[in-house]
Amino acid sequence: MSEGIGVSSSATGAGDAPEIGVGMLGYAFMGKAHANGYKKVSYMAWPPPLQPRLVSIAGRDEAAVAEAARRYGFERYATDWRDVVADPDVQLLDNSGPNNLHFEPTLAAAEAGKHVFCEKPLGRTADESYDLWQRVAATGVQHMTAFNYRFVPAVRLARQMIEAGELGEILHFRGRYLQEWGTTDADVWRFHAADAGTGAIGDLGAHVIDLARYLVGEITSISASVRTFIPGREVDDAFEAVAEFDGQAVGTIEATRFAAGRKNGFCWEINGTGGSLAFDLERLNELQHSEGTKGFRTINVTEPDHPFAQWWWPAGHIIGYEHTFVHEIQHLLAAIAGEHGVAPHGATFEDGYRAAEVCDAIVRSAASGRREAVSYRS
Amino acid sequence: MSEGIGVSSSATGAGDAPEIGVGMLGYAFMGKAHANGYKKVSYMAWPPPLQPRLVSIAGRDEAAVAEAARRYGFERYATDWRDVVADPDVQLLDNSGPNNLHFEPTLAAAEAGKHVFCEKPLGRTADESYDLWQRVAATGVQHMTAFNYRFVPAVRLARQMIEAGELGEILHFRGRYLQEWGTTDADVWRFHAADAGTGAIGDLGAHVIDLARYLVGEITSISASVRTFIPGREVDDAFEAVAEFDGQAVGTIEATRFAAGRKNGFCWEINGTGGSLAFDLERLNELQHSEGTKGFRTINVTEPDHPFAQWWWPAGHIIGYEHTFVHEIQHLLAAIAGEHGVAPHGATFEDGYRAAEVCDAIVRSAASGRREAVSYRS
Amino acid sequence: MSEGIGVSSSATGAGDAPEIGVGMLGYAFMGKAHANGYKKVSYMAWPPPLQPRLVSIAGRDEAAVAEAARRYGFERYATDWRDVVADPDVQLLDNSGPNNLHFEPTLAAAEAGKHVFCEKPLGRTADESYDLWQRVAATGVQHMTAFNYRFVPAVRLARQMIEAGELGEILHFRGRYLQEWGTTDADVWRFHAADAGTGAIGDLGAHVIDLARYLVGEITSISASVRTFIPGREVDDAFEAVAEFDGQAVGTIEATRFAAGRKNGFCWEINGTGGSLAFDLERLNELQHSEGTKGFRTINVTEPDHPFAQWWWPAGHIIGYEHTFVHEIQHLLAAIAGEHGVAPHGATFEDGYRAAEVCDAIVRSAASGRREAVSYRS
Amino acid sequence: MSEGIGVSSSATGAGDAPEIGVGMLGYAFMGKAHANGYKKVSYMAWPPPLQPRLVSIAGRDEAAVAEAARRYGFERYATDWRDVVADPDVQLLDNSGPNNLHFEPTLAAAEAGKHVFCEKPLGRTADESYDLWQRVAATGVQHMTAFNYRFVPAVRLARQMIEAGELGEILHFRGRYLQEWGTTDADVWRFHAADAGTGAIGDLGAHVIDLARYLVGEITSISASVRTFIPGREVDDAFEAVAEFDGQAVGTIEATRFAAGRKNGFCWEINGTGGSLAFDLERLNELQHSEGTKGFRTINVTEPDHPFAQWWWPAGHIIGYEHTFVHEIQHLLAAIAGEHGVAPHGATFEDGYRAAEVCDAIVRSAASGRREAVSYRS
Repeated sequence: MSEGIGVSSSATGAGDAPEIGVGMLGYAFMGKAHANGYKKVSYMAWPPPLQPRLVSIAGRDEAAVAEAARRYGFERYATDWRDVVADPDVQLLDNSGPNNLHFEPTLAAAEAGKHVFCEKPLGRTADESYDLWQRVAATGVQHMTAFNYRFVPAVRLARQMIEAGELGEILHFRGRYLQEWGTTDADVWRFHAADAGTGAIGDLGAHVIDLARYLVGEITSISASVRTFIPGREVDDAFEAVAEFDGQAVGTIEATRFAAGRKNGFCWEINGTGGSLAFDLERLNELQHSEGTKGFRTINVTEPDHPFAQWWWPAGHIIGYEHTFVHEIQHLLAAIAGEHGVAPHGATFEDGYRAAEVCDAIVRSAASGRREAVSYRS
Repeated sequence: MSEGIGVSSSATGAGDAPEIGVGMLGYAFMGKAHANGYKKVSYMAWPPPLQPRLVSIAGRDEAAVAEAARRYGFERYATDWRDVVADPDVQLLDNSGPNNLHFEPTLAAAEAGKHVFCEKPLGRTADESYDLWQRVAATGVQHMTAFNYRFVPAVRLARQMIEAGELGEILHFRGRYLQEWGTTDADVWRFHAADAGTGAIGDLGAHVIDLARYLVGEITSISASVRTFIPGREVDDAFEAVAEFDGQAVGTIEATRFAAGRKNGFCWEINGTGGSLAFDLERLNELQHSEGTKGFRTINVTEPDHPFAQWWWPAGHIIGYEHTFVHEIQHLLAAIAGEHGVAPHGATFEDGYRAAEVCDAIVRSAASGRREAVSYRS
Repeated sequence: MSEGIGVSSSATGAGDAPEIGVGMLGYAFMGKAHANGYKKVSYMAWPPPLQPRLVSIAGRDEAAVAEAARRYGFERYATDWRDVVADPDVQLLDNSGPNNLHFEPTLAAAEAGKHVFCEKPLGRTADESYDLWQRVAATGVQHMTAFNYRFVPAVRLARQMIEAGELGEILHFRGRYLQEWGTTDADVWRFHAADAGTGAIGDLGAHVIDLARYLVGEITSISASVRTFIPGREVDDAFEAVAEFDGQAVGTIEATRFAAGRKNGFCWEINGTGGSLAFDLERLNELQHSEGTKGFRTINVTEPDHPFAQWWWPAGHIIGYEHTFVHEIQHLLAAIAGEHGVAPHGATFEDGYRAAEVCDAIVRSAASGRREAVSYRS
Repeated sequence: MSEGIGVSSSATGAGDAPEIGVGMLGYAFMGKAHANGYKKVSYMAWPPPLQPRLVSIAGRDEAAVAEAARRYGFERYATDWRDVVADPDVQLLDNSGPNNLHFEPTLAAAEAGKHVFCEKPLGRTADESYDLWQRVAATGVQHMTAFNYRFVPAVRLARQMIEAGELGEILHFRGRYLQEWGTTDADVWRFHAADAGTGAIGDLGAHVIDLARYLVGEITSISASVRTFIPGREVDDAFEAVAEFDGQAVGTIEATRFAAGRKNGFCWEINGTGGSLAFDLERLNELQHSEGTKGFRTINVTEPDHPFAQWWWPAGHIIGYEHTFVHEIQHLLAAIAGEHGVAPHGATFEDGYRAAEVCDAIVRSAASGRREAVSYRS
């Protein structure tokens, strides 16, 4: 070989990081987003803490899961998730399946000594979530709930600003997650109580609750109304809630699948004695900040010193929805590699459980007509 | 006089309309806004249904009220409102005074046969408001509560679109009124329970409630939390509420004086089966409309066929906050002149009372921790 | 009279200010805006420097001008402007007529010793404007060109920030005035060369040029293209120009009547070494400011320490297009009263002339295909 | 192997598509963006027309290029681009190098029968670009200039709407590319005339020119001013230009590296007789559309029937800057696979040359002070 020409020390883009074998459950929307995350993390979040090796993917439709394996580069596939969990090459189970498949496969994987990464909501109820958390925690593996919006750069920046005291004492949180596709007559698992648990509550509301907890603190009570607009639909289409927080902060948490014109409108605003922040997921590269009462400044959260920006592009070159998964998976791999804990920036299964307690309180308050205290088991 | 020169048939800008003598109580923020409204209505909302004659203005500080009379062109002033009410030249009492001065002067004027126009909130409680409504209604005079935001062109346009069915069935109302001046240590009447009744609830929340009723319909229940952030302050600083409406619509109603960066952020959004509308008072010339799920279009509500536009400027030449009072006063004068009723576009005292019932329910729910049904006396 | 009741010392709202008799030419869009300005200035910009007395108004259609006189409260009217100019009670001529009626009446008024306030563009050409300026200046009266956008609070604030050095050295000005009504087939004077001089150039471009001069400095050269989109129309529909400024700043100046969707889109942006400002007339209460490269903050220019705010409403209660005329007329009256000069914040006839030189350069460059130097006569 | 478990037919994510060996020149900003594009195209734009095999990457710094090869998964690297061009496994040369390295390697690759994909600007002058185009075209390989913004979904949608006649006849194009990093004192190749050719003109202006051509049509003349704000800098920092188009459209083209607060502000607006479109690269998922004069609607260009959306996420889940390269590379691979031509949606080298003619006209007009006709060699 002549001088100045070299064989790359890795044809896989892996660098020197040790491999970690990934098994995945699910290949639909979430499976695609996670698969893309594993593939990008190895060369964009460079150098990766561990090199993901896509070992096996499970799905019930053999033709579809075989196609998914080919597409994303999994070495093998299985129509029974137990084969993935049992696979000796798998050290991490990524559970991107529907809600009714969160508990059993995740627990089985953890009890087989595999790290677990599970889509939200963690369980269909607080009880199921608590049980899963407790039993997984007992195994000693790393566990993370996929609240990926914690990994939006603007959200992490908000957390940093709040921790630095830039907002003073927080008085209000106003969070709403507005979508519009609830009018569909497609018969998807998200509309079935046995599969999904709840509707907008667990699907959208859980995200709002998790960011409320991540940015403001624990929710102590909920007063809520819930609606199912489509006759016969088993799950809720929308809810509206007043939330009280530890301390004196108070606010609203809302979600609906019936907000025509709002595609993915996860918006929140936080008001503190020292200023305010506001965010809209449809413009996820922007954070609105009012320093005191000076009025809102649009921070384009893409500058070199902004969270996660070192992996991406120069200032003003925006990133998208999928990048949250790259950040999240990098975080999980780094936690598995021992660089830091899953907490506080990643949502542990305890965080998954706590969000479920609030979801339960929404259901409970809607039924009782009372302000329901939220208490958390430890 | 040579051909082509003429003496104007009116040096006052009055046109041929009969005069109506106006007496006013209060010369501060609201008094100024109303006085400006009477003066502009006579030449901008041309031809005016009646020509306002500014007869007398009342205020406790003689030097200040004399100055106000000179400034706005009232013929006389009084330090006792009874002198204004008793003035034989006064046919309309405009009550722009603080909340504790709504009941007695307004009732006295009505019982003296004068039409009455009273600032919001109508009373400090639902009881006081109901009593005022009932007793005033019994006199047969015209009565209007100053919910001036019904007279924002974009709000009227929203009402027209909703009435025309463009939103289909309404499912959600999301209203919040955000201000930031609550941190002040000024000792104003708005912070005293005896004068103001409530704080953000009656001052800001009443506006949200009134537009919720005007655009969506009656509120049937409230679940709320209320906060006073400043120790020792007698009135609330903020509240958060879930509201249920007649039918299946559900939403949130919020107001605070502690939203740093929000000067006058009265924002609402309505989602229906046929589309959505959204509005922000800080951009009051704009109405956001999503036809179905097509996404939001900014309607600059200044075009010739838009509400109230015929009195103002060509398309794109925006109007401001004060113009709502011109529209409102024109509406009241037309009602007095018999052109139409105060209802449905103007808020009658019954509307003022009904908003007070919802305000009371907010207070009640915050205390009881229950979803409080709102029932309306007739 | 009992204690606490008083006769107002003025039933007109005039206060103690001396009167100034106003004669007006024109009662259409501009006449209405100016008339409203005189009426509001006396009680809103309190105390007014002089009390406008609306003496006489001229227009060719007797029925219409008689109606305008009644509407706005002029004491008399005339179908020949010479009668207004000759009226001994008139001390100020407000020329709100079409462009072809700017020169002769304004000059006649000045030569009769009356102060003059003339709509823009001052003349139909630089020559006509120069002649008018020189001859009026020789009479010693006060003269102002109605570039009312200098009196938008956000524009005045921009000027203050630039003067205070907050933008550092200015490098770019990017100004465009976009309207959409050029498709009309109405036969208005604005489309006739003899009446209007130019089309979009003098009507819209003159405003852009004036603010460029007010905020950045003198324009030294122009490279332009001009278009008339409607066959047979006598005046231009649009132009696009590159402007070079004294110093190293460079930018664009554009105007069109063919920008569908833009009602009154007068937008400008200024970039300096220390930061940037941006403005949109359709949101005239907002000024966008980037302090250095920190990103744009929306200043809601309605706070107590903002320009002109002392005359209006609390923070966040926006004003509209018409208010610019109130500010402008107050400024003129104060200048006449000797409180300050018309310059630098008001546009003198010299400013009107200088804008016309740039308009001429646009026409010249479009024809010659060259970058045309702009030189100013003194 | 038990039923329901399978070995994936491809561990690489390649599917059944034939491989194409890619050689790359450059590993900085553009190299990273292109490398990411090749990696993602094979599983996101599924099924890919060809499966990219990352064969070799060239760069002068051996340690850095070896690291880049490891990071992105190239099989080998070289410090001399000739080794990449000569590599028998390379069928496509991706030239992401600086402008002075566009001509020679690209030509050598084409003459060696490799397809070529070259960053913009194609050459440092129109002459260099023309020569490259002519000589490459003569070889018969596929050639594409990396004007990636043609592959923003909103831009493609704009093109579709214009082709469908939704804008009627186009009258105006207003394009500006605003960045702020020109104040840096870093000594990068972009500031050296021999390396870069021009500054803002070729770097930013070329993008504006290309979209003007893609969306509106050919530019026939330019009137421009150019500025270098930093003394001693060899290339331009900013330019302002008036552009005339084939037909009657006219507009402005601007770019600067000195717009404080604008990170990556590539904004354009198009006005036609039937409506308008507007776009801002910092919100690249949004397209503003005014149907006629109805006012601007925000289209969130992420819905299933929008361009490129089939490869990504549900409506409202936004994509970022890097995705333009995935779309662009998919397009190139499909062209190489014979599915369609590079034109009209991809920019051929002829498009690269034509943009360079306009860049040259900007330079020429700035120097001559004349409106310079743009003529294109065929």
